[in-house]
Amino acid sequence: MGSSESRFPNRLRVPGSWRLARLGASGEVPGPGDWIDARVPGAVQLDWARARGFPDLNFGNNVAAYAGLEDSHWLYRTEVPRIVLEKGRALYFFCGGVDFECEVRLAGSVVHRAKGLMTGFEIDVSGAKAGAPLEILIMPAPKRPGMPDDRTQASNVTKPAVSYGWDWHPRLIPLGLCEETGFEVRAEANLAHVDFAYELTEDLGRAEITVTAEARGPAAPLRWCLRDPSGEAVLECAQPRATLDRPRLWWTHDHGEQALYTLEVELGSGDRLVRSVGFRRVRLVMHPGAWDLEATFPKSRERPPVAVELNGRRIFVKGTNWVNPDIFHGRVSAGTYQPLVDLARGANLNLIRCWGGAPAAKEAFFDACNRCGMLVWQEFPLACNLYPDDGEYLALLEQEARSLVRRVRQHPCLGLWVGGNELFNSWSRMTDQALPLRLLNKVCYELDRGTPFLPTAPLEGMGHGDYRFWNKGRDVFELYQSSAFTAYSEFGCPSTSPVDLLESIIPREELWPPRPGSSWTVHHGLGAWEADPTTWLCTSTLRHFFGEPRSLEEVVRLSNWLQCEGYRSIFEEARRQQPRCSMALNWCFNEPWPTAANNSLVNWPARPKPALGAVRGACRPVLASARIPRFQWREGETFTAELWILNDSPAPVTAGILRAELVAGGKRLKLAEWGFGEVPACANARGPQVRAVLPGSPGGDFSLELSVAGTEACSSSYRLSLLPA
Amino acid sequence: MGSSESRFPNRLRVPGSWRLARLGASGEVPGPGDWIDARVPGAVQLDWARARGFPDLNFGNNVAAYAGLEDSHWLYRTEVPRIVLEKGRALYFFCGGVDFECEVRLAGSVVHRAKGLMTGFEIDVSGAKAGAPLEILIMPAPKRPGMPDDRTQASNVTKPAVSYGWDWHPRLIPLGLCEETGFEVRAEANLAHVDFAYELTEDLGRAEITVTAEARGPAAPLRWCLRDPSGEAVLECAQPRATLDRPRLWWTHDHGEQALYTLEVELGSGDRLVRSVGFRRVRLVMHPGAWDLEATFPKSRERPPVAVELNGRRIFVKGTNWVNPDIFHGRVSAGTYQPLVDLARGANLNLIRCWGGAPAAKEAFFDACNRCGMLVWQEFPLACNLYPDDGEYLALLEQEARSLVRRVRQHPCLGLWVGGNELFNSWSRMTDQALPLRLLNKVCYELDRGTPFLPTAPLEGMGHGDYRFWNKGRDVFELYQSSAFTAYSEFGCPSTSPVDLLESIIPREELWPPRPGSSWTVHHGLGAWEADPTTWLCTSTLRHFFGEPRSLEEVVRLSNWLQCEGYRSIFEEARRQQPRCSMALNWCFNEPWPTAANNSLVNWPARPKPALGAVRGACRPVLASARIPRFQWREGETFTAELWILNDSPAPVTAGILRAELVAGGKRLKLAEWGFGEVPACANARGPQVRAVLPGSPGGDFSLELSVAGTEACSSSYRLSLLPA
Repeated sequence: MGSSESRFPNRLRVPGSWRLARLGASGEVPGPGDWIDARVPGAVQLDWARARGFPDLNFGNNVAAYAGLEDSHWLYRTEVPRIVLEKGRALYFFCGGVDFECEVRLAGSVVHRAKGLMTGFEIDVSGAKAGAPLEILIMPAPKRPGMPDDRTQASNVTKPAVSYGWDWHPRLIPLGLCEETGFEVRAEANLAHVDFAYELTEDLGRAEITVTAEARGPAAPLRWCLRDPSGEAVLECAQPRATLDRPRLWWTHDHGEQALYTLEVELGSGDRLVRSVGFRRVRLVMHPGAWDLEATFPKSRERPPVAVELNGRRIFVKGTNWVNPDIFHGRVSAGTYQPLVDLARGANLNLIRCWGGAPAAKEAFFDACNRCGMLVWQEFPLACNLYPDDGEYLALLEQEARSLVRRVRQHPCLGLWVGGNELFNSWSRMTDQALPLRLLNKVCYELDRGTPFLPTAPLEGMGHGDYRFWNKGRDVFELYQSSAFTAYSEFGCPSTSPVDLLESIIPREELWPPRPGSSWTVHHGLGAWEADPTTWLCTSTLRHFFGEPRSLEEVVRLSNWLQCEGYRSIFEEARRQQPRCSMALNWCFNEPWPTAANNSLVNWPARPKPALGAVRGACRPVLASARIPRFQWREGETFTAELWILNDSPAPVTAGILRAELVAGGKRLKLAEWGFGEVPACANARGPQVRAVLPGSPGGDFSLELSVAGTEACSSSYRLSLLPA
Repeated sequence: MGSSESRFPNRLRVPGSWRLARLGASGEVPGPGDWIDARVPGAVQLDWARARGFPDLNFGNNVAAYAGLEDSHWLYRTEVPRIVLEKGRALYFFCGGVDFECEVRLAGSVVHRAKGLMTGFEIDVSGAKAGAPLEILIMPAPKRPGMPDDRTQASNVTKPAVSYGWDWHPRLIPLGLCEETGFEVRAEANLAHVDFAYELTEDLGRAEITVTAEARGPAAPLRWCLRDPSGEAVLECAQPRATLDRPRLWWTHDHGEQALYTLEVELGSGDRLVRSVGFRRVRLVMHPGAWDLEATFPKSRERPPVAVELNGRRIFVKGTNWVNPDIFHGRVSAGTYQPLVDLARGANLNLIRCWGGAPAAKEAFFDACNRCGMLVWQEFPLACNLYPDDGEYLALLEQEARSLVRRVRQHPCLGLWVGGNELFNSWSRMTDQALPLRLLNKVCYELDRGTPFLPTAPLEGMGHGDYRFWNKGRDVFELYQSSAFTAYSEFGCPSTSPVDLLESIIPREELWPPRPGSSWTVHHGLGAWEADPTTWLCTSTLRHFFGEPRSLEEVVRLSNWLQCEGYRSIFEEARRQQPRCSMALNWCFNEPWPTAANNSLVNWPARPKPALGAVRGACRPVLASARIPRFQWREGETFTAELWILNDSPAPVTAGILRAELVAGGKRLKLAEWGFGEVPACANARGPQVRAVLPGSPGGDFSLELSVAGTEACSSSYRLSLLPA
C-alpha cells in the first residue's frame, strides 16, 4: 500500500490504547471518572461525541453540538508498553503531527513541545519505565485575538483555515492526534529521514541520483538499492551518489507509464526503508507565441508561465480542486483517498490541486497519485487571509513548510508548489512583498528547486471563478467563449445533492420548500456565498431557465442538468483555447461532509454526481466537440455550433469524418459531415459551423450528437434546453 | 571618509608595488622584459595602455586599440613585504574582489582561486618568506560560447554586462585587480566580518540590535559600543544583543536628518572596526485606494506595491538611474562618487537606482549616500539577458549575491534590492520561474528580509521608457499626461554634449555635420539605439520642431532646451499623479565616459548639463507647477495650462496666492491669481486652468512664469516653443 507505516518493514508497532480527558484548565488533573476512550489517530471531538452519544453529525443541525469543544484543553494518556527490548533494539514514541499544539509528558515530566499538523516528532523512550504514563496535553485551538468567528482567526498560524468555516464547510475546528502516533520497536541505529533527489540531464537520458540519510543512534553503514519497475536492481550503492542511464520516466496516466522504481535503504543495524520513487521533470513555461504578442511589458508577469511541460512535453492540464475529504483529518486514511483518486483518474483528469485551505494530505494520497498518474499541485496552508510578517508566524510556517517539502518532494506525482489560495486578491491583500510568500519561495528553492513554485493562484492571466452557471445575464457557454485566459484555476457549477442524500441530512419537515435558517443553510444550500443568498441551491438560476421549480426532485434533476452541461462546456472550451490556454481546474472535486448543494463532482465520502460523467466525457484525450453559443434555445431559432476535434493525447488522430446530428422532439436531423485531416499530437482541429432551424420539443430539450465514423469513443452528446416558440 | 580601508584603524597597510605581464598562454613564464608597471586597483588595459603609450582613450576612435586585450591571460606580481612581525601580529594579503577570475600563487604554489568583483578574500601570509613572489593570474574575460559580440556573452556570469557594449558604453571589457588589494599587518585575532542588524518595533520607538562578528585567529573577547550622532556612547556591550530606546532615525535629506551612529567593535587583541550605521524602516506598499479599484484580480500583481514607505511615512521618490561612473571600475574611488552624489542631492533627488548592468558600487558610494540622505535601489548584476538555471551559474550568483548583501545591508541608505534590469521583458525572457531570480529572493530573505525585494524592473504597473522627447507624433508633455502608472522606473530625454566637450572627443574634421561611422557613432550620438538610428543626437526630433539645424552650436542649444523642458515636464507630471504614482526615475544620471549625446544629466566625469538645473527645479519639495498640454505652440492659438501646488515635503504649505504670467515677444501678460488653501504634507493642490491667446515671438519661444507671493523658492518658469502664425 505504501502508507508511511509499511515503509519500514523491520520496525514493529506496539499496540496500545489511549484515554482522553477534557480539562477545565491546562493544569487540571483529571479524576478517574473523567477519562473516556480515545481513538488515535482521530480528534478529541470524535471521542467526546462517541462518549457522550452525540447524534449523527451529518444530520440536521447536529453539528451545533460541537461548538466550543475546541476551546478546552484536552489530555491524552497512554502508557509505555511493557516489553523487553533485545540488545541493539530501541523503543520509540512517534507522532506524525499534532492538531494543533501540544506538550508531551513522560512520567509527569514535559519531554517535548510541538505545534503543527505537518511536523512529526519521535522520542527514544527505551529508558522509560514500563507502564509509565505518557500524556499529551492538547492546547485550545488557536484563534487570533480580535478576529471575528471566521477564517481570519487562523490567519497567523498554519492550522488549516477551512475548519473555521467556509461556504461548503461547517465551522468545526478539530483538535487532537490526527496522524499516526504510538510506540515502535526499532534498531538502535535507525533512519530518521531519507532523501531521494535526482537531476535529469537536459535530454532526460540520465539521472544523477543522490540518496542521503539522516540516522539516529550508533553509527552504522548504509547501503541503498534502486529497483526498476519490474523489480530488477539497477543500482546498488554504499555511496550517496550514483548515475542511472535511461531512467524510465513517470508520466501522467494520459501521456505515458507511471514508472515507479523501488528504493531500498538499509542501515547495518537492519533498519530499512522501502518506498516508491520515480523520475519526472516538470516546468512551467510560457505558451507558444506569448513573447511575440503585442503587449505592454513586462510580459512574463502579464501572462506568467503556467503551461505544464512534463518530461519535455507541453501537456494540457485537466484537473480539479481537491478539498479535505473529511471534516476530521484524523480519520482520513488510504481507504478515504484511493476511491476518490480512482474517480478522478476515471474522469480523465490528470492533475489534482490540493487547495491551501485544507490540511495537506497524508502519504497515502500521494502514493495513490503516483500509481494513478495524477499530477499534484500542492499548496501551503494559507488561504484567503492576510498572513503577517511577524517572526513567530514565520518561524512556524518555515518549520511546517520544511516538513511538508521534505516529505512530498519524494513523490514523482508532485507537479508544483503554490504558496496558497487567492492571496493576491483584495480579500487577502497579500503581495509579492509579503514575507510568508518570500519564505515559501526560499524553502522551495532550497529543498526542491527543480519543482516550479507559484506564490498563489490566481495570478495575472488566470481565470478564477465564477461559481454559477448563469451570471450577469450570461451562461457559462457564453462567458468562457469570450474569455482569454492562460489557465482556469477555478470554475464552478453547483448542483443539488441526490434526494436520498438530502433525506439523510435534512429533517423531513424541512425538505420542501427549502427555507433559510433550516438545515438547508447548515448544509450550505442557502446563505453559503455572499454573492447570491440562494447559491448553491441555484434558485434564481433555475427560475431563470425553467420557471419556479415545483418539487425537490425537479430541483435536483434540473440543477444536475446545468452542472453536467456547464462543466462539459467549460472543460471543452478551455481545451479549444489551447495553446494560449493550458489548464482547466474545476472547483471542486470532493467535499468534507454531505452538502445539500455544492460545486463538487463527488458527494461525501466518494459518491459520484452525474456531472462527473460529463467531465469524464469532456476530458477524454480525443473527442469530437462542439462550440455551442449558449445553453437555452427557442423553437424556430437558428441553432449554430462549431465542430472541433480535440486531441490532448501524445499521438496524432488519423483523418476521419465527424457527423453532427440534432435530435429534438423525437426527430433526428443530420446537420453535417465534416471530413477532417490528421490532427497532430496535443493539438486541435477546428471545423465548420453547422446550423439548423430548431423544431419544437415537448420535453423542453434537444441534443446535439457528434460521432466519428469507426471511433465510437470520440462521440459526444450535448443536451440543451429548448423553449416553445 | 568611511572608506573600507579606514574602518580598521589598528591595521597597517604595507606599501608595495605591482608589475604585470601579458601572457601568450596561461602557463607561460614571462621573461624579464615582459613586465610593465601596474597600478592596483586598476585594470590590465590601463597598465597596458600606459606602457604602450596609447593615445587618449576618449578621443575619436582610440578605444579601438583596446579590442581583444580581454582575451589574454595576464599575470600580476608583487612580493611578500620584508617586515618583522611583532608577537601577536599577523601579515595578511587581502583582495576586495577580482575582475573576473584569478588564481593566486605564493612562491610558485597556487594558494587560492577566486571569481567575481564582489567577493573578496584574505590570506594569512605570516609564514611566507619575505620577498617571496606573490602572483595573480587573471583569466581571459568570460564570453559565453556561441554568443555574438554583445551583452549576451555575459549572460552566464556575474561580470557586469555593460562592458560588453551598450547604447552609451563602448565595448571595452576590463580585467584585473579592480578593488583594494595588498598586504596589511593586523592582530593575529582579527575581525573577518561584522554584522550590524536590528529590528525596529512597529512604532519605531525601539531597536533590537544584534552585532555579530566572525573572527580569525586565536579566540579573543569582543566588545562593541554604539555612539549616537553627537558621539555619545549609548550602548556598550560584550553580548551580541542590546536594545536601543528611541533611536534617531535615518531619513532621506528631504524628509529628516541623516542620523548616523558610530559602531565600534573591538577584539581583545586590539583589532578594531569603526563604521557608521543607522536605523530606518523601508517598506514597499500599495498606493492608497489600490485595493478598492475595479480590476480583474489579482490586484497586487496588476499594480504590485511600489510606493516607498520610509519610517512609516509614504514618500514620493524622485530619483535617477546610476550607471558605472567610469569604464574602469578599478579607477573609481571616493573621489569619483562624492561629487556625483552631491550633484544628485543638490538636484533634490532622493533615490539612486544602481542599475544591474554596471558593477556594484564600492563602499565609498554608500557612505556618501548615507551622509547625503539618498536612498539606494541596488540591483544584482543581471541586465537584459536570459540568465540560465544551470548549477554553475547559480553557485557563482549565490556567492556574489551573498557578498553583496552582507556588505550593503550595513548601510541605512539601502532602500530596496532588485534582481536586475528588464529581465521580464521580451528581449530577456526571464520569468518568476527563473531560478536565478528565485535564488536572489532567497538570499535577500535570508540575509536582509527587512529590506524589500523586487525580481526586476519594470514590473506590471510601472512605466519604463521611452527615451525620446518626441515619439509617435507626441511630445513627452502629452505622453505622460495620458499615462497612468504607479511608478516611472526609467524615462529619458537626450541632449547633445557641450561644444567644448565634443571638441575634446571628436576630431575637428568630423564635428560638422555629424556622419554615421565617424566618432559621432563611437561616442553614441548616432547608431546607438536601434529604435532610431539618429538617437541620441535627436536629429529627427530637432528637425520636427525647429527645422534642419544649421550648426553644431544650434544642435547643442536646441537639444538641451528639449532635455530641460522634457525632464521638467515628466518629473512634475509624475508628481501630479500621486498618490497613484509614487516614483519617478530618469534614465540616466551619469555616464562612464564622455558621450557625444546621451540621456544623462551629468557628463563624464561629473559635469552637470543644463537639464540638471531643470530637474533641480522640478524636484523641489514645494513648488508652483503647471500642467501644460504640449511643448510647441503657434501664434494666435489659445494657450492653456492647469495650475498646481506640489508638496512632497513632510510639512503643510500655508495658504497663499499663485500668480501666473505669460512672457512672449518681450510682453508680460498676467493670466491669473489663484488663492490656494493650505496644502497638507505630502499632497498636492490642483488649481484652475488658465488660458491666453498667444502673441507672436520673434525669438521663437515664450515662457509661463509662476510665482507665489512671499515664497520666491516656489517660483517656476517654463520655456516653450512658439511658431509664427
